[in-house]
Amino acid sequence: MNFTPQEFSLRLNNVKQKMSDAGIEVLILTDPSNMNYLTGYDAWSFYVPQGVIVALDKDEPLWFGRKQDVNGARITTYLKHENIFGYPEDLIQSPPSHPFDFVANCIHENKWSNKSIGVEMDSYYYTAESHDRLIKQCPNAKFKDAYLLVNWIRLIKSDSEIAHMKDGAKLVQAGMRTAYNEIKPGVKQSAVAGKIQNTLLGGDEEIQIGGEYSGLNIILASGASASASHLTPTDKKFKENEGTIIELGGVKHRYHCALSRTVYIGQPDPKTNDTLKITNEGVERAIESTKPGNTAHDVAVAFWDVLAKYGLEKDSRCGYPIGIGYPPDWGEHTLSIRKNDMTVLQPNVTFHLMAGMWMDTWGLEVSETLRVTETGCEALCNFSRNLHII
Amino acid sequence: MNFTPQEFSLRLNNVKQKMSDAGIEVLILTDPSNMNYLTGYDAWSFYVPQGVIVALDKDEPLWFGRKQDVNGARITTYLKHENIFGYPEDLIQSPPSHPFDFVANCIHENKWSNKSIGVEMDSYYYTAESHDRLIKQCPNAKFKDAYLLVNWIRLIKSDSEIAHMKDGAKLVQAGMRTAYNEIKPGVKQSAVAGKIQNTLLGGDEEIQIGGEYSGLNIILASGASASASHLTPTDKKFKENEGTIIELGGVKHRYHCALSRTVYIGQPDPKTNDTLKITNEGVERAIESTKPGNTAHDVAVAFWDVLAKYGLEKDSRCGYPIGIGYPPDWGEHTLSIRKNDMTVLQPNVTFHLMAGMWMDTWGLEVSETLRVTETGCEALCNFSRNLHII
Repeated sequence: MNFTPQEFSLRLNNVKQKMSDAGIEVLILTDPSNMNYLTGYDAWSFYVPQGVIVALDKDEPLWFGRKQDVNGARITTYLKHENIFGYPEDLIQSPPSHPFDFVANCIHENKWSNKSIGVEMDSYYYTAESHDRLIKQCPNAKFKDAYLLVNWIRLIKSDSEIAHMKDGAKLVQAGMRTAYNEIKPGVKQSAVAGKIQNTLLGGDEEIQIGGEYSGLNIILASGASASASHLTPTDKKFKENEGTIIELGGVKHRYHCALSRTVYIGQPDPKTNDTLKITNEGVERAIESTKPGNTAHDVAVAFWDVLAKYGLEKDSRCGYPIGIGYPPDWGEHTLSIRKNDMTVLQPNVTFHLMAGMWMDTWGLEVSETLRVTETGCEALCNFSRNLHII
Repeated sequence: MNFTPQEFSLRLNNVKQKMSDAGIEVLILTDPSNMNYLTGYDAWSFYVPQGVIVALDKDEPLWFGRKQDVNGARITTYLKHENIFGYPEDLIQSPPSHPFDFVANCIHENKWSNKSIGVEMDSYYYTAESHDRLIKQCPNAKFKDAYLLVNWIRLIKSDSEIAHMKDGAKLVQAGMRTAYNEIKPGVKQSAVAGKIQNTLLGGDEEIQIGGEYSGLNIILASGASASASHLTPTDKKFKENEGTIIELGGVKHRYHCALSRTVYIGQPDPKTNDTLKITNEGVERAIESTKPGNTAHDVAVAFWDVLAKYGLEKDSRCGYPIGIGYPPDWGEHTLSIRKNDMTVLQPNVTFHLMAGMWMDTWGLEVSETLRVTETGCEALCNFSRNLHII
């Protein structure tokens, strides 16, 4: 296991406490990050229904999933084998049967049919169909929305979690170095993406550690495509006089450190140059405002005040918490760095300060993964934010 | 665009025909593969709510998503800009607001409030919350489950789609060659995974094409971990006298070709050797049974008859259709290669024949991506199915 039994126990107790406070007796978690957080479960099996159930009347969580994934749960979690339940293969992709029929049955068998049951209404992989099965088959249960209940607990990291994220920082910086070294006119984006992945997963001579797949794929787009926030590498070739946005994640034990930078081949045009300088000034002010007691709003105001000073606009938020992640995301979906988000920052809150400036026909990105410290914050990476010119 | 306007038009007409048959006037698609199939949309933005709406009273589909992703939709789809709708940033991860409030509003504005509206109840990214918003805010609409409506159309590929999958086949074979070359005792799994990704994305000297991220990450597990079906590479080192299962996807224009093989370092033990031979015999019989007019059941019977002859058991299905994919999956969720699935095979059905044998403390995998031809089938890869010994 990547964490001590004490740390898993503390996580579970925190969840149970919050369940009690919310009047929830049984909690069904389908977000793979929450499953991992509470049990260690780690496998690319979230393409079929699965989950972890925390019940106030059980010491350990229960894991349920496809029968062929039971060995994965035995290997990657701390759970007793008796708490790992595989549903039969004939429930897989064969309507009218469905794996949540098994979950409903599990609710009945555990005498939870009349209980208050929390479900993550808006979590990835909790489909409308899954919910429909539960409410129809457990008509006497009281279903409550427990979306983000666990995510809010994840907001504040332990020192062990921070250590994994710092390994992620080493990986992501190595990945960005690879990008800087490999981007050249005439080279395909896909070829550079391959080299970046090689570093993100295999490390390099300098760092000597290996990484894992990221909750968010490599985002890399050039020229007019850099006006879009989420395009991915293709066979297009890098060209002179084009900017390229690059957003990467370094991952260790499923903990992410994200980093975004902008590259320009040739002599950058003034608008790119100027906008990047303004953006960096905003990022610096935001970093200075990141300290315990300040709110997400305060950080946002510090950032947007700089933009306003220069007459620049940006609609989208400029940050969100980061930690454990599985596709499709590495964000934790709790606070947002935007005006009027009054969440108070505390030590060991970690967030991705993401200044993506997506304009009409071009764009740039600068980002840092920050950890709130006792007195301010630290950026997990130490990597120049200047426009990188090739 | 990667397909002609005629091909997109044909796809849309097929969907509208099926909608008519099912009494559906408006269809809301949230599966990223279905969005891509109908519009070309291609971006890693499926971590926020988005979709494509097909209405019988509209010529073109409508795309909706986060405002910052609008440029991505303009760049990657054929849609007129007037049919691309960005919802405001303040709906992003800020309960009690939600992006599907915008979708409900769109239903009202288009005078669809009393229509029959199809939704993909069990599709990835159609959360219980999204559905709940729609049914509460559009109480006069008649919601129908349209899960798999588009997927069933996708089952039969065009020749252009097959061409992309054959590019995927070149990539995945190159990736498997890399795995064979790089796996050595003492080398970390993560280092090999990096090299594999480098090839899957960047190609190699032999093939000269680039690939894309896969709907399913690299599955790679050794020794006892190969008893689990979906574990991913870690920093563990390859060891003598261990088998390793490897499942890879080669991807071009979002079309996948999957390939699984088993590697053994040292002299394989008899059970691995024997089981792989039996599995390969089953795979061969299954391939021989794959032809137009035969059913998925027939293919399954051919495979399991071989297993039964040798007293081997396997619970999980041994195949599913494959084509367009986004995380978390490359499968199409329609037919399954298992007994009693009476889906009739037709030319240009493509499926991943996946013989994963996950035992108590070890495992092996052999798979092929098959295309049904006019008279039988072809494997898209040409790659020895023998146990690869290092």
